[in-house]
Amino acid sequence: METKILYGKELSEKVVQDIKSRVEKLKASGRRVPGLAVILVGDDTASKIYVSKKHEMCEKIGFRSFSFNLPEESPFEKVKELIQSLNERDEVDGILLQLPLPPHLRERTNELLTLISPEKDVDGFHPYNVGLLTIGDDKGIKPCTPKGVLYLLDSYGIEVEGKDVTMVGASNIVGKPLAIMLINRMATVSVCHIKTRCVPSFTRKADIVISATGVPHLIKREMVKEGAVVIDVGISRLNGKIVGDVDFESLLGHASAVTPVPGGVGPLTVAMLMENTFECYVRREGLYGI
Amino acid sequence: METKILYGKELSEKVVQDIKSRVEKLKASGRRVPGLAVILVGDDTASKIYVSKKHEMCEKIGFRSFSFNLPEESPFEKVKELIQSLNERDEVDGILLQLPLPPHLRERTNELLTLISPEKDVDGFHPYNVGLLTIGDDKGIKPCTPKGVLYLLDSYGIEVEGKDVTMVGASNIVGKPLAIMLINRMATVSVCHIKTRCVPSFTRKADIVISATGVPHLIKREMVKEGAVVIDVGISRLNGKIVGDVDFESLLGHASAVTPVPGGVGPLTVAMLMENTFECYVRREGLYGI
Repeated sequence: METKILYGKELSEKVVQDIKSRVEKLKASGRRVPGLAVILVGDDTASKIYVSKKHEMCEKIGFRSFSFNLPEESPFEKVKELIQSLNERDEVDGILLQLPLPPHLRERTNELLTLISPEKDVDGFHPYNVGLLTIGDDKGIKPCTPKGVLYLLDSYGIEVEGKDVTMVGASNIVGKPLAIMLINRMATVSVCHIKTRCVPSFTRKADIVISATGVPHLIKREMVKEGAVVIDVGISRLNGKIVGDVDFESLLGHASAVTPVPGGVGPLTVAMLMENTFECYVRREGLYGI
Repeated sequence: METKILYGKELSEKVVQDIKSRVEKLKASGRRVPGLAVILVGDDTASKIYVSKKHEMCEKIGFRSFSFNLPEESPFEKVKELIQSLNERDEVDGILLQLPLPPHLRERTNELLTLISPEKDVDGFHPYNVGLLTIGDDKGIKPCTPKGVLYLLDSYGIEVEGKDVTMVGASNIVGKPLAIMLINRMATVSVCHIKTRCVPSFTRKADIVISATGVPHLIKREMVKEGAVVIDVGISRLNGKIVGDVDFESLLGHASAVTPVPGGVGPLTVAMLMENTFECYVRREGLYGI
């Protein structure tokens, strides 16, 4: 069996180009451009890289970007005040609080995310947006990575309705919302995680396996049905190399399609963040259909 | 194998008695009692029965109950105005909009549910409460039937963590929120529905099978692993008799435990509604720990 490689990178370029041309039209008509504010608390190396990628992308597209780097030891109230001031700022359409937060703020993560106005919640993590997602109401803002995965599947014409999908990983950021979105699209979804007795008994039956655990090479050939589609949302470092949850090489010639890491789902996450920012702008400005 | 019958009815009596004695203490201390408002649009026979059951239970417990029966043809704005006025009324702690709505309002159901103030949303259907449930934050109000199912399992000492659970049915009222609550409790959950290719392939593997479809006798002995626990959330009428989704008789001597219909999950739904009303009252009054 020939295995199709699902390149998120190319798809994301197209999304970005499309938004860019819409921003150019806005500029040409004398309108303000969308603005994204990113808050980073502390100086975690990986987070800094992610944040700078987001700012670079804003620049490329023509968005305004606002960067706030608070010191590691910032108290809860400081972050809260910043979020509240950004909720009020007209030129800010999207507010992103980079996760994970430093240890002293970590258990209040949801509390801080809930302070972001739902209309500016470009990450789709506010309970109101999560609730809309859960009940299948498209009025909310959807989280970037799950949205990117569905965009990838749709773009490659991979139907999910009626398919057996195994989701490995049940986080609030990827596993749970993606499982819910797939259920809403009428896939039969099994959600596995750290407490699952036998993950392979689920993955082996699935038409589509999606893994978002951060465990390098968790998903191997013998855990996947021949001809299945395998989506790798994991990203970790193994012997100095960026690797995913999926043992990519072992699936070639066995799976019908597989995403590489890097260059698979990752780039779509940033593209969807840009799309969400644009969507928030459009709603705030009442500019539907542009 | 002896099959344990899981009686929700007896458990619900205990819950109700417990709330009743707390209400008596409130009265004794001269405080106002919790109040529940129920809105019924139209005169669907089944809905009227459900609504009157809720009022009876309020009376039994000592809650104030407020009944609003709007005519079948009521326009959206009328229902909206009523909800908004109830949001403002201090003596109303819980607002329940009886579903299903008449056909002309049905597709705006979520819009109406979203108008109910989240603090008075005793059904737990407001997107904000659904979102809190999804991210595993206990600050929200949880939907009554899923909450009742977990209460039943907990009361009978049936552990869910690490168990394989198959949820048949994916509605916003039962299937989806219950699946999410089970995932949050670290069960491995598979969600089946009308588009699932082979439901038995999921139910046969499960330690716990939960069915909420309204299809009489959908779940039969040969679809269930020996020793599994079977929870029946369905309720429908077959040849004039109230029956569940589960072919109860066929499971005796095969399942380790099963809920009857009627007398299983049903009574717990109303009990949890009373608990939610009490909880909303406690939060609004700031009376924690009573």
